[in-house]
Formats: sequence, C-alpha cells, structure tokens
Amino acid sequence: MKKKIKKVNAAILIIGNEILSGRTQDKNIAFISNWLNLKCGITVSEVRIIPDIEKTIIENILVLSKKFNYVFTTGGIGPTHDDITAKSISKAFKVKYEYHKEAFKILEKYYGKNKFNDGRKKMAKMPRGAKLIYNPSSAAPGFITKNVLSLPGVPSILNSMIENCKRYLIKGFKVHSKTLNLYTVESNISKKMGQIQKKYMKSVEIGSYPFFRLGKIGVSIVSRSTSISKLESVNKELTKLAKLKKIQILKI
Amino acid sequence: MKKKIKKVNAAILIIGNEILSGRTQDKNIAFISNWLNLKCGITVSEVRIIPDIEKTIIENILVLSKKFNYVFTTGGIGPTHDDITAKSISKAFKVKYEYHKEAFKILEKYYGKNKFNDGRKKMAKMPRGAKLIYNPSSAAPGFITKNVLSLPGVPSILNSMIENCKRYLIKGFKVHSKTLNLYTVESNISKKMGQIQKKYMKSVEIGSYPFFRLGKIGVSIVSRSTSISKLESVNKELTKLAKLKKIQILKI
Repeated sequence: MKKKIKKVNAAILIIGNEILSGRTQDKNIAFISNWLNLKCGITVSEVRIIPDIEKTIIENILVLSKKFNYVFTTGGIGPTHDDITAKSISKAFKVKYEYHKEAFKILEKYYGKNKFNDGRKKMAKMPRGAKLIYNPSSAAPGFITKNVLSLPGVPSILNSMIENCKRYLIKGFKVHSKTLNLYTVESNISKKMGQIQKKYMKSVEIGSYPFFRLGKIGVSIVSRSTSISKLESVNKELTKLAKLKKIQILKI
Repeated sequence: MKKKIKKVNAAILIIGNEILSGRTQDKNIAFISNWLNLKCGITVSEVRIIPDIEKTIIENILVLSKKFNYVFTTGGIGPTHDDITAKSISKAFKVKYEYHKEAFKILEKYYGKNKFNDGRKKMAKMPRGAKLIYNPSSAAPGFITKNVLSLPGVPSILNSMIENCKRYLIKGFKVHSKTLNLYTVESNISKKMGQIQKKYMKSVEIGSYPFFRLGKIGVSIVSRSTSISKLESVNKELTKLAKLKKIQILKI
C-alpha cells in the first residue's frame, strides 16, 4: 500500500438488475465500505446501483471516476451475456477490449484446456492496460483500469479478493468512531446535540439513529472523526448531556 | 391509484452516513423495489446512497427527479440536526421550508402539547405545498413534493407507511418473472442463453446468477417481462436447452 495522504474517498458502483429489482439483497456495500475505512482509511462518499445497460455503465464510470479517488464496481464480470462490465469500462475509457494474457493463462490452467470454452474465455477479456486483482476462490480475476477496481458480485468471492485490492490503493487517515447508546428519544436531546455538532463542525460528524431493544426505545449517537482526541471531547460532552437529563446509558 | 401508463420508473435515494459507512446494512432498497414492482408495476431504475450533506442532497434530487417518474428518498426526516432532507428538498425546488399545518396538528396530538418540543416540531416542517404520507406506527408523516416521496430511514416505520404512497402513484405494467434453477455452471450455457436473449431482446430480460446449495454449484436464470406469454416462450427454450445438455433442474 502506498504513501498516506490526508483524505481519500471512493464510490461503489453496483452493476446488476438483480439488486435493483429487489430479488437479491445487497451485501457488498457494507462489506466494502467497512473494509475501506478500517483497512485503508478510505471513505465511501457515494454508492450507485444501476442496471446492466452499457450506456448507463459508461456514463456512471465516467462521472464517478472523475469525482472520487477510486471507484469499486461489483458484478457483471462473469461468463454470460449480461456480464458487460469489462466491455463497458473499455468503451468508457476508449481502450481496446481484449484478452489479458495473464488472466487467460490463469483461467486456462484452472479449467484445463479441454474445458476452457468461450464463456470462460470471456472472463479473460478486459480493458487494455488493466492490472489483475487475484481471485483465490474461483480463479477469474478482477481488474483495475485507471482508478476503477472491478470485482465480482457474488459476496463470498468478492470477500476473498478484497485484500488483493490493497496494493493499488493510496492509504488515507482512518475514520474512528464512538457510539453512545442512550435510553431516550431523539427529540429529547436534539437541541443540545445540534449545538455540540456545531461546535465540532469541522472535525467530528455526529449522527443519531433510533433503536428498539427489548421493547425499549433508544438512540445510538455515533460520532466519527479522524482525530481520537476530538472524538473523546465530543463523547464527554454527550455523556454530560445524558447525565444532566438523567438519561440511562446502555452499555453493550 | 391513478390510470395505468405503459412504463413507469423510479429512483431510490438513500440519505444517510450510517449506510455509506457500512455501520448499518440497508434493508429499504429491496423492500421498496419489490413493493413498487409487485403493487404498482413501477420499475426501480437507479439507486443512490449519499451522505447527509445539503449540497449533495439538492444536486441528487434535481438530477433524479428530472430523470425518473418518481424519486423515493429514505432517511433524514427525524428531529435531530442531521435530519436535513425536508430542508434540502425545499431548497432544491426553491419553495419555502415551513410548518405543514396538518402535520403539526398530527404531531401535537400524538405527543400532547406539553411534550411537543422543538425537535418534534421540526418533523412538521416541510417544503411548501407538500402532501402527507401518513405514518401509522410513529405519527411523524412522510411527504411528497412534486414527484419526490420522502420516507423515514427506520425500516419498520417505512414498511408501515408504504401503502400510503399508493394514492400518489401512476400504475405501470407489472414486470413478471420466472426463475429456472439449474445444476450447472454459467459457462456451460452462456452461449446458447445469449442467443435466446438476442431473440427476445425487446421483450424479455434474462439474467443469470450463480448459487451454492448444499455444496453443489448452480445457476438461477431469471427472466423478466411484462408479457407472460413471452416469458413462457423463453422458459420453454431454456428448459429445452437444459434437457439437451442433460442438466438437472432444481425444483424449489
């Protein structure tokens, strides 16, 4: 992994009709986002889910790759007709869509010459100049083209490959978080919490999320920052607020 | 629900740092998408997940509301400082952000005059001209502004409100689907399946998704169409293909 720079961000582009239609529940967004933050200090700033339509993929690749340091695509790199991610990225960046020699060799070895049919060969076709993201579970590699990293849609396979993305990423500062769980309702603390947020506007991001636990209502207050000391200051102020309002703090 | 027109589409805009950071696993996308398709014949064509940043919300509301028949937003309509959806939509459409009289009455009645504090009052502030989406589980209503329907982020509350969106929606033709589960690998059928897709290019959308069941590998082939007869034709051709290749069909 390369040298640290201060703020590094990424977008995730989920390519697949099965997620859009609601047939399949996405599991990749939370996984990639957590991994990027914890392991690389990279913040996911936008996610888009789009259908398997070439024009749509091209448009989104161009917009997101300009706007963010990295784009992670998932889905559409298998052997069937609806797998058009590699071809679409080639068109977006105006480079040839062709066999990647090393990917071809990896797949030929994995399947054996006799079973290396056209569908499987398709998985070796990539944008010219792409570098491989190795796949320890089912051989077919992902690839990086400029700042776009393309991974498969099947979560177990994606998960097995994610560490192999690291070599291509610049590391940013990790965002730390602290959660305070309070047995209260949001509106009871919203005013004072808003004031605390204002005070730490530039360094800490405070979010509040209602929860239900064993029939009781509560609020999780999540503070996020690259500075641990600022986080602790916020946490102190929030804890003070809870005590002042006689709110029970839930310890998990 | 209003008169049917042929093709009606929608976008979902998830507003919330907690989903982007991977802290919370989204459950609303699949729920809304399934409901829109099954109950309203509306296809979700794009999903975006964005942070609680006013400028970003405004930009996305403007782009998506122009591009699609409807936009469903989730999140950011509670009582705290990070709930800025209503204010941002007001700014996007250049209308006043003000108390909605009926919403104010509903909330005042629900909480009682004594407990109707500033945070709770905030939930009655909406873009001028908004119409309410009633909330049977926790009172605070959602709202529709032009073609943008705003719902809360908590899945159980959102689920309880979804039927109340129906009155505002034009109904489209329902997309039916048929799934054929085959004990084979994608590359074994990809060529012929691609040909079938080409033949039915305009009427049926065929997707293939690998699965793992009891240690065996398979492919779900999902065909989707507004025409049941076309769907059945495709299914016949796919079943014929499976028999020809001696592939076991899994009955679920």
